[in-house]
Amino acid sequence: MQDFVFDNKTKIIFGKDKEHVVGEESVVYGKKLLLHYGGGSIKESGLYDKVVDSLKEQGVDVHELGGVMPNPRVSLVREGVNLCKENNIDFILAVGGGSVIDSAKAIAAGAKYDGDVWDFFTGKAAVEDCLPLGVVLTIPAAGSESSAGTVVTNEDGWYKRAFGHIKLRPQFAILNPVLTYTLPAYQTAAGVTDMMAHILERYFTNEKHVELTDRLCEATLRTIINNAHTVIEEPENYDARAEIMWSGTIAHNDLLNTGRIGDWGSHDIEHELSGIYDITHGAGLAIIFPAWMKYVYKHDINLFAQFANRVWDVEIDLNNLEATALAGIEKTEQFFRSIGMPVTLKDAEIGDEHFEEMAKKATENGPRGNFVKLYQDDVYQIYQLAK
Amino acid sequence: MQDFVFDNKTKIIFGKDKEHVVGEESVVYGKKLLLHYGGGSIKESGLYDKVVDSLKEQGVDVHELGGVMPNPRVSLVREGVNLCKENNIDFILAVGGGSVIDSAKAIAAGAKYDGDVWDFFTGKAAVEDCLPLGVVLTIPAAGSESSAGTVVTNEDGWYKRAFGHIKLRPQFAILNPVLTYTLPAYQTAAGVTDMMAHILERYFTNEKHVELTDRLCEATLRTIINNAHTVIEEPENYDARAEIMWSGTIAHNDLLNTGRIGDWGSHDIEHELSGIYDITHGAGLAIIFPAWMKYVYKHDINLFAQFANRVWDVEIDLNNLEATALAGIEKTEQFFRSIGMPVTLKDAEIGDEHFEEMAKKATENGPRGNFVKLYQDDVYQIYQLAK
Repeated sequence: MQDFVFDNKTKIIFGKDKEHVVGEESVVYGKKLLLHYGGGSIKESGLYDKVVDSLKEQGVDVHELGGVMPNPRVSLVREGVNLCKENNIDFILAVGGGSVIDSAKAIAAGAKYDGDVWDFFTGKAAVEDCLPLGVVLTIPAAGSESSAGTVVTNEDGWYKRAFGHIKLRPQFAILNPVLTYTLPAYQTAAGVTDMMAHILERYFTNEKHVELTDRLCEATLRTIINNAHTVIEEPENYDARAEIMWSGTIAHNDLLNTGRIGDWGSHDIEHELSGIYDITHGAGLAIIFPAWMKYVYKHDINLFAQFANRVWDVEIDLNNLEATALAGIEKTEQFFRSIGMPVTLKDAEIGDEHFEEMAKKATENGPRGNFVKLYQDDVYQIYQLAK
Repeated sequence: MQDFVFDNKTKIIFGKDKEHVVGEESVVYGKKLLLHYGGGSIKESGLYDKVVDSLKEQGVDVHELGGVMPNPRVSLVREGVNLCKENNIDFILAVGGGSVIDSAKAIAAGAKYDGDVWDFFTGKAAVEDCLPLGVVLTIPAAGSESSAGTVVTNEDGWYKRAFGHIKLRPQFAILNPVLTYTLPAYQTAAGVTDMMAHILERYFTNEKHVELTDRLCEATLRTIINNAHTVIEEPENYDARAEIMWSGTIAHNDLLNTGRIGDWGSHDIEHELSGIYDITHGAGLAIIFPAWMKYVYKHDINLFAQFANRVWDVEIDLNNLEATALAGIEKTEQFFRSIGMPVTLKDAEIGDEHFEEMAKKATENGPRGNFVKLYQDDVYQIYQLAK
């Protein structure tokens, strides 16, 4: 087990109708608030009115910036940064899913920085201070509601890049499973895939003697798998929605990362895909992860066999551990397909015309992944396996 | 799943030699510090000097109060409260195990209160403010290093009572598994039992649809069970000590409690035992928990069968779930015995002379436990089953 610091101060407020406390939770940080959200869905659902009412009851002065798109753009982030600076904003409230929260985090960092916010994503600048932010979560998937990271796309070259800092963790996150009832099946399934991918990225590590985190990962994966079909078939099943929503946070709040170094190669490989094709992140992961697994499993067959056994109930064949390992990969791919995700690039109608370019961009700052270091040709081979 | 708030701000600093950062972590909260500890073991081991050196390097003014005993006494707490008030202490640093931390928490609350600190334990007063505190942990067991609770004994009547408040959570906890190498086998085993009991208290709930927390509980229990014999037989096995130490924190940081109401009857029943007999808390739990299980398992045979299957690998006998449930209880008792714990009162040379009195005291403020409500006669019967 590696040394670690686990420092997650996000207050989780979980349950029915909990969006009503957003005013009292926000006002603690000041009276000038930027309300950040995506399209019109929160207005149609009535959530927007509930949130604004709760804020106004506390005398909060609400500025707003909507229009966050999936794969949030740096142009809107820059707009948000200017809004914060011009209006001396004290606090940012993100109402939405991962894209809205990631956009809000970038704004929070940019608002306390004199240069261009993209500098944080290229590594040109490091965060020293940032505005505090809070979340009302509507899409369980990205885990951004208590993570320290953000992923934003720069339209100039379609670069999708990430950065993280502990000060980006939201002060609070309100999780009401009822708000997820209206999520369409496809988006629900993409969210399920995203949270599973967050755990898989951490699970496949070269660190030995990380039994507790191995088992916590397996526990969370099994819970997600066990509830995924229910939330798709019965979108208003509170219990299943609650299991999925809480699992999505646990998957990415860094608990499952303690004492180990995750891989994250598949995320980087997928980022090139959704950077160019604007495919849903979760769907991209459903395509890339099985291909990545097939490419790297020989690096640690025992770990893949353990995964097959403990997560997918594949019996361990001591005379053929490779078969056990492969059965786990097959189960993973079958599961993604069973919840309606594409599992090949062909399923997503993506051809091989950009493989070279994507492999080059993915590795332009060095090899990707930690479990197995992936160079340009490795990434190219993984796209080939995903065809 | 019940609504919940999960708000745990304790920063965990985990790994070899991490006690060297205690100065820089503490000085953030002020320059006047009360160093609180137990007997002489931290002086013998050299830990005391390392901590004091680190504090002095940061210019911290160190006041100190040693002498905390197992089952910490309110008399010493009162002494600590006076010390804090007289010296305008800013921060309390607990160096030790659960007793030292619990004593420090009570001092932290008492230091900001005009009345007698015992008022918090009787419910006569509620915490409004308290001093911040930090921890250097030497005994993985109580989980007090990131919990919100404290348990103290009042020598006047030998009442052992608990109270909790979110402000009692330590600001940071330094966990260096190497510091636990010198723990004797018996104390190591008592710690293992204590952390398992913390999970079992949460596991046995009447709340349905708490799959994620069920599985996280099972994952943590399996990890503890799998490493317990190693830490006893190879006290300097870093990896096993690390698994046990981190598991002890996870067992009691309230994550495993999210969405459910735990039982805590066994803890209350044990408190009467260790209040009178001054038996190690973990040893008392090894005696009481199997007896409690035998007394209540019929209340939810399915849950006990799930426990037997998922934690102890007992095959589920669908034609005789009661046998499955009982096999899990038997495995639990066997395990405690295998690590050197007493599992009957006779093993601990405790007779039945105080059963009536203990059962009465345990229930004098109403029935105990949530899974099954236990009245005076129920508690008496559990002591009988533990004979």
